[in-house]
Amino acid sequence: MLPESKEKIFQTEAKARQLLKERGVSVNDIAELVYFLQKDYHDGLTMEDCVENVEAVLSKREVQNAIITGIELDMLAEKGVLSEPLQSILRTDESLYGIDEIFAFSIVNIYGSIGFTNYGYIDKKKPGILKELNDKSNGKCNTFLDDIVGAIAAAASSRLAHRSANVE
Amino acid sequence: MLPESKEKIFQTEAKARQLLKERGVSVNDIAELVYFLQKDYHDGLTMEDCVENVEAVLSKREVQNAIITGIELDMLAEKGVLSEPLQSILRTDESLYGIDEIFAFSIVNIYGSIGFTNYGYIDKKKPGILKELNDKSNGKCNTFLDDIVGAIAAAASSRLAHRSANVE
Amino acid sequence: MLPESKEKIFQTEAKARQLLKERGVSVNDIAELVYFLQKDYHDGLTMEDCVENVEAVLSKREVQNAIITGIELDMLAEKGVLSEPLQSILRTDESLYGIDEIFAFSIVNIYGSIGFTNYGYIDKKKPGILKELNDKSNGKCNTFLDDIVGAIAAAASSRLAHRSANVE
Amino acid sequence: MLPESKEKIFQTEAKARQLLKERGVSVNDIAELVYFLQKDYHDGLTMEDCVENVEAVLSKREVQNAIITGIELDMLAEKGVLSEPLQSILRTDESLYGIDEIFAFSIVNIYGSIGFTNYGYIDKKKPGILKELNDKSNGKCNTFLDDIVGAIAAAASSRLAHRSANVE
Repeated sequence: MLPESKEKIFQTEAKARQLLKERGVSVNDIAELVYFLQKDYHDGLTMEDCVENVEAVLSKREVQNAIITGIELDMLAEKGVLSEPLQSILRTDESLYGIDEIFAFSIVNIYGSIGFTNYGYIDKKKPGILKELNDKSNGKCNTFLDDIVGAIAAAASSRLAHRSANVE
Repeated sequence: MLPESKEKIFQTEAKARQLLKERGVSVNDIAELVYFLQKDYHDGLTMEDCVENVEAVLSKREVQNAIITGIELDMLAEKGVLSEPLQSILRTDESLYGIDEIFAFSIVNIYGSIGFTNYGYIDKKKPGILKELNDKSNGKCNTFLDDIVGAIAAAASSRLAHRSANVE
Repeated sequence: MLPESKEKIFQTEAKARQLLKERGVSVNDIAELVYFLQKDYHDGLTMEDCVENVEAVLSKREVQNAIITGIELDMLAEKGVLSEPLQSILRTDESLYGIDEIFAFSIVNIYGSIGFTNYGYIDKKKPGILKELNDKSNGKCNTFLDDIVGAIAAAASSRLAHRSANVE
Repeated sequence: MLPESKEKIFQTEAKARQLLKERGVSVNDIAELVYFLQKDYHDGLTMEDCVENVEAVLSKREVQNAIITGIELDMLAEKGVLSEPLQSILRTDESLYGIDEIFAFSIVNIYGSIGFTNYGYIDKKKPGILKELNDKSNGKCNTFLDDIVGAIAAAASSRLAHRSANVE
């Protein structure tokens, strides 16, 4: 039998991965954002490289905690059970809220400051899965999720850049 | 009649102040933390000075957003309605969680990096209201609130230090 | 006669403004970046609004300290007097260095997390003055300056967005 | 022969370690700070554990870049060759400067937000080597170094706490 703390660690990672899937985000979707961000800087970059770096980011506890907390808030807002004005702020993805960016920022930081630029860039351009997550027409609330997904892609890009410099 | 956005801004500040009060934290409690942190550096520091700086921090939107989001999570954990493992992590104030510190950090940062030291120091020492908020024996969950209160005190201390240098 | 500390504060602001000018960056150049970032979100936005918000950011001490430290490092690198490998890292604007982004980040943060996206976006797109600052053909070293200028524009954009919501 | 980029990476780590040594800071000094911070939380914690975690932090590029940049500024201030008012600010370790904390913060962040508390605590208490680094009577300027050393100890403590939870 596993000791309690180790059990909880496995549980957090499993939950984080399950929530991403349930909310329509696959590892491949995030890897495509990494490919979009890095293809011009690394000759011969493959989707396998991108997937590997996304997986490494997803294995970090701080990332998993951001995922399970942010998606919980998104889902509670979707159910309409939060107090006002938080309920309306999340439901409308109010641009001055800022707490979603704080979550993103805690993820990006794990691989250092070089990820800020990539995060900001895809958060503005909204390529691939980020466009879908921002579609407000389907009744979904992805206020936290879209920033979290962009941040994971930016962090994976930083990791890829650091690794690449070490082995080239 | 107020335009909608201005209405929401007033609503957020009112809600943030009301939540602090309901959770047992007065402006005076936070001002006492500021006094604790700053009394050795400013001759003739009064509680009025401390209150004034806490009020200024509380008037910032990012601070209000951190308050209404963090306390909402604390109260949902208290009601036992969050998903696992988030429910258990918040209920036990798990030391490796880290998202509570992220909220704190977004508050401290508004008055610049000089506040980190003060935040870390009172978060470890737990003077005054912080000791009460960390009392786990009363069934309350203050996982986010204690970090938020410490961060407001640290931010108010930074503001006080900057102002003091400008006028001395 | 001014007390010493107040004297030093005036001196820091004066020096920061003088250095920006000497390195070829006017308040207007930065205001144009703000206009580029914000024109689609605020009807009737004028360059005067943008200048006013840049001026407010430049009046913050943490911003001034980032400016006088970052430009000092740029100029020392230009003179070739730093130790290796720092000298080469700054001279080539090595993409994995990261300390320049740390400076940027300390500036952006003062107006909250909503500025990250704008910072990342212009750091990637390099509009206006940022393109000139990145021109490596003229013997200049602007490793810190280009990130600092982008960060001031992003911070001013956050300030503008917050103010605008308060008065509209 | 090593490719140029890999050469520069080795050079940065070697330089960072050499500078710490030259400025009077051994790996053991930093490990003692980790022991001070963590001994009450981990039964049977050894100095070997602490050393191992400090070594891991020192192997990170962002940490090495902070070290070589911060110590360079300290040494330039010691030689008196920086422009005013930066020269005086660094020489007197001016408490409102804030850029030294920014460096610290970039180091702490690599192992997540749980390190802020430990950083703030030792920065205030100044145990062991931090007390020596803050001794202003010997003509040395350690404005950046003392924050960097405290941050490395805080980051190593975070790493130790994360690892410990994974294996216990």
